[in-house]
Amino acid sequence: MTDGMDVGWRLVDKVYELVRQMLTFGQQANGPVVRFEQPDKLKELLDVSLRTTPETFDRLVAACSNVIQYSVHTGHPFFKNQLYGGVDPYGLAASVIIEALNTNLHTYEVAPVFVLTEMEVIAMIKSAIGLPDSEGTFCPGGSIANMYGLSIARHHYDSATKQQGLFGLKRMVIFTSEEAHYSVKKAALFMGFGTDSVVTVRCNRDGSMNIAALKESIAEVNKDSDRRAFCVWCTSGTTVLNGYDSLDEIAAVCKHHGLWMHVDACLGGVALLSPNYRHLMKGYERCDSLTWNWHKAMGSPIQTSLFLSKHKGLLNECHSQHASYLFSENRLYDTKYDVGDSSIQCSRRPDAFKIWLMWKAHGLDGLVALAERAFGNAEYLAERLRANPNFRLVNNGVNGCSVCFWFIPCRLRGAPESDSFWREVGKVNLALKLKMVATGKAMIAVQKLPDQNLVEFFRVTFTCHPTMGREEVDGLVDTVLRAAQDL
Amino acid sequence: MTDGMDVGWRLVDKVYELVRQMLTFGQQANGPVVRFEQPDKLKELLDVSLRTTPETFDRLVAACSNVIQYSVHTGHPFFKNQLYGGVDPYGLAASVIIEALNTNLHTYEVAPVFVLTEMEVIAMIKSAIGLPDSEGTFCPGGSIANMYGLSIARHHYDSATKQQGLFGLKRMVIFTSEEAHYSVKKAALFMGFGTDSVVTVRCNRDGSMNIAALKESIAEVNKDSDRRAFCVWCTSGTTVLNGYDSLDEIAAVCKHHGLWMHVDACLGGVALLSPNYRHLMKGYERCDSLTWNWHKAMGSPIQTSLFLSKHKGLLNECHSQHASYLFSENRLYDTKYDVGDSSIQCSRRPDAFKIWLMWKAHGLDGLVALAERAFGNAEYLAERLRANPNFRLVNNGVNGCSVCFWFIPCRLRGAPESDSFWREVGKVNLALKLKMVATGKAMIAVQKLPDQNLVEFFRVTFTCHPTMGREEVDGLVDTVLRAAQDL
Repeated sequence: MTDGMDVGWRLVDKVYELVRQMLTFGQQANGPVVRFEQPDKLKELLDVSLRTTPETFDRLVAACSNVIQYSVHTGHPFFKNQLYGGVDPYGLAASVIIEALNTNLHTYEVAPVFVLTEMEVIAMIKSAIGLPDSEGTFCPGGSIANMYGLSIARHHYDSATKQQGLFGLKRMVIFTSEEAHYSVKKAALFMGFGTDSVVTVRCNRDGSMNIAALKESIAEVNKDSDRRAFCVWCTSGTTVLNGYDSLDEIAAVCKHHGLWMHVDACLGGVALLSPNYRHLMKGYERCDSLTWNWHKAMGSPIQTSLFLSKHKGLLNECHSQHASYLFSENRLYDTKYDVGDSSIQCSRRPDAFKIWLMWKAHGLDGLVALAERAFGNAEYLAERLRANPNFRLVNNGVNGCSVCFWFIPCRLRGAPESDSFWREVGKVNLALKLKMVATGKAMIAVQKLPDQNLVEFFRVTFTCHPTMGREEVDGLVDTVLRAAQDL
Repeated sequence: MTDGMDVGWRLVDKVYELVRQMLTFGQQANGPVVRFEQPDKLKELLDVSLRTTPETFDRLVAACSNVIQYSVHTGHPFFKNQLYGGVDPYGLAASVIIEALNTNLHTYEVAPVFVLTEMEVIAMIKSAIGLPDSEGTFCPGGSIANMYGLSIARHHYDSATKQQGLFGLKRMVIFTSEEAHYSVKKAALFMGFGTDSVVTVRCNRDGSMNIAALKESIAEVNKDSDRRAFCVWCTSGTTVLNGYDSLDEIAAVCKHHGLWMHVDACLGGVALLSPNYRHLMKGYERCDSLTWNWHKAMGSPIQTSLFLSKHKGLLNECHSQHASYLFSENRLYDTKYDVGDSSIQCSRRPDAFKIWLMWKAHGLDGLVALAERAFGNAEYLAERLRANPNFRLVNNGVNGCSVCFWFIPCRLRGAPESDSFWREVGKVNLALKLKMVATGKAMIAVQKLPDQNLVEFFRVTFTCHPTMGREEVDGLVDTVLRAAQDL
C-alpha cells in the first residue's frame, strides 16, 4: 500500500457499510423503489461533474450515498419493471470476491479456481436438466449468448464460413416468432446476416409461435432460389407475455427440414429447474443450442448468461484462433483447462462463480424451491386479480412466472367494450404506471401488443429474489389499487 | 428478508472481511502470487463439487477462504502475466455498489444514476483527450469493443448491410499488422466477414506496422476484382511488444484510399492520459473509431472497455431496433437519456461508473499521475536491466509501459550467439517463468516471436495498480535473479 491508497480502502469499507444498509432497509415494501428526479435535477443532486482535482473523503462518501439513494432499488419487492430483480446474497458474496480478485477466464494458469468452478457449474446444470452430452460457456448477457447460437449454427451449416464469411452465399434464413426478443435482429445485423434474413412467424394468443405459420414460412423460403432455410430461433419465455414456443413440434419441423434449432430460454429457462413447470419447455432436449439467463429469475447478479450446445467441440472449432501469447503448450498442467479460446472474448469475467456459490449454499434442492416459489407467486397473483373486478387478466393471465393484466377503473366497469373503452383502459394503465414511478411506490412494466390488438397492460414477472411471500403479493395488489384511487 | 436469507447476508459480511484481509496482506511482495496446485488436487482442496443439499455456514466460509487463497493474486506487485493488474480501490468500491444494486443500462427509468454517470465519464474522456465531437459506449471487453468498430465501419461503408447483410457483396478487406491482437480474426469470423478478409501486414522490429508493406497490401487488394479495401485496424500497444503503429502515417493512407481507420488502443490507450507519452499515439485524433480498456493499465475492475467513434449518431443508426417493450416514448423524462438501443446488448452493466468514482477520487490530475508512474516504472526497469549483464533487452527494451527482456544465465554469457545459444536462452527463460509460478514468487509472461526470430523472452507490463515504487521494481529484478540461481 503506497501513496494514500489506504484512503481508497477506507472508502471501500464505508461503501460496504452503505450497501449493507441499503440491502437491509432498501428492500422493504414500505420504502420507495426509486426517488424519481428529472435528469437535470439529478445531475445537481449527485454533483455528477468530474474535475481535474480530487474530492475530499467526505464528499466521496456523500456521492456514494446519493448514488445509492437515487438509484432504482431492484431488490425492492415492487420492482417488477424488468425481468430481473434483487440479488441472491450468495451471488453477491461471490461478486465481491470476483471483483476484488479482478481476474479473467483465459487460462487455468491465471484463474485456476474460476476455471474449475465454471466447469463444475456447467457440468451440474447439464446433469440437472438432462443434457449431459452438451458443452457450454458463460456470456456477457443473453443477446451475446444468443449470437453464440447463430455463430456455431453457421459453422455447422458450412464450416468454410469461418474463413470465407458470407460473401457470395445464398441468404441464410432465420425463422423466429414475432414476439421473439429483439436480440435476434441485432444478432442478424451484427453478424453479417442482415435483418432481412430474419423471417418472423405469427404468434398464438399466448405468445407462442404458430406452428402452421412456421411451416408455411419455411415452404415459402424453400421455393425461393436466392434464400435457404437455416435455423429456427425458438423462444421459451417471450419478453412481453412470457410465451413458450412448442419446442416438441418445432423440433419435428427442424428435423424434417434439417434446420438448426436454437432455444432462447433467457427468460423462461427457470422452468427447467422446476419439476412442476418443466413441461412448458417440453422438447427442449431436442434443440441444438440453448441460452438461459440465470441473472433473470434466479437472481445471480447481472450477468450470468449460459450458452449450451449439443455439439461437443464445435464452440472451439468455430471460434479458436490459437493465439500463442495466451494459449501455450508450455504449462505446468494439462492445457484442456485453458478454456478461453472457445469464446469470442479475450477477457471474460468468471460469472459462473456466482452460481457456484449460490448452488453450494442453497443446494440444488434450495434452488428448485426458490424457482417453485416464483411460479407459485404468479399463480397466487393471478388468483387475486381474477377475484377483483378492478382487474382484467390478459389471456388466461398467467404464463410461467409472469402475470399480465389491466387495471379497470370503476367508472369503466360494465361499460360496452368499444375501441374507445380500450383506448381509455390503455391510457389509464400507462398513467397508473407513471404515477407509481413518480411517487416511488412501485415500478411495474406496462406494455402494449398492437399486433394482437392489446392496449397497454401491466406485466409482473416473479423472480427468486427478492423472496416474496403471499403478504407481499397482497401488498403489491393493494399498492396498485391505492395508486389508482383518483384515476 | 424472509426464509433464512439473513444467513446469506451474514456470509456477504464474512466474505467482505476475507476480501479485505486479502487486499491488505495478499498484495505484499513477500507473499505468494499464487499457490499453484494441479487441477485434480485443487478440485479436492476446494471441494469443488456441487450437490443437491446445502452446505453449512462454516463450510461456505471455508470454501470462500479457499477460493481466495488458491486464486492468482492479480494485485500482487509481481503479477505481470497479463496486461492488467490489481484494482483501483475506488473502482472496487464502485463495483460493490453496482453489484448490490444489480442494475442495467437500458434506460434512464431503470438506471438514472448510471446513465448520467456514464454520459459524464464519456464526455470527460472525450474532452481530456481532445475528441469532443465523438460519441461512445462501454462494452464487455476489448474484443467486443473492437467488433463495434467493424460494425459501424461496415454500416458507414454501405448502410444497406444492416438489412441485407454481406451476402452477394465483394469481400471487404481489413488490413492489420501481424502483431495485432487475435480479436481482429475472431471479429472477422463472428461478424460474417471470415478470417480470409483479414490481410496481415508485416511489422517493424518495434512491433509497429510497416507502412510500405501496408501500401503494397492495399495496392494488391485494389487490383483484385473480387475484393475491396475496407478498413485499417491499427494497434496502439500490441500484445507482445507493446508496439505502437504510426497513426499519423496510416491516417494519410486511409484518407488517400477512403478507408475506415480503427485504432485498437485497448492496451496502449493509457498513453492518451500522459502528456509525456501521448506522442506514441500521434495522429489518433484522425481515426474514425478507437477502443481503450481502462481495466488494463488504469485498474478499473474488469471490464471497462470504451468504444469511441467520430461519427455521431452512427452507433444508434447501425444498431437500433426500437423494441417497444423497452424503449417507449411514454416516459416521465426526455428519452434521449434512454441509451440502450445503440448497443448490441440488451443487458449492459454500468461499468463506466467505476471510472466515475475513480475520477472523482483521484481527479484527472491524479489519474494522469498514476499513468506517468506506470511509464516511469518501465523506464526504470529497463535501466536496471541494461546495467546488469544477466539480462538482455529485446530491441530497445522499453515500449510504453512494457519492458521485454531475456535472462542470460552465467554459463552462456560471452558464448557465441549461434542458433543453439538462442535455443538455450529460450528454454532457460521458459523454465524460469514456470519455476516462479510453481513456487508462487512471481508470475511474468514469457513469449516468443518466431516471425521476428525471437526466442522466449519475459514481458513486464506496468499498470497503475498495484502502485509500485522503485523498491518494488528492484524487488522484481531480485526475485528473477534469485529464482534463476540454479538454472
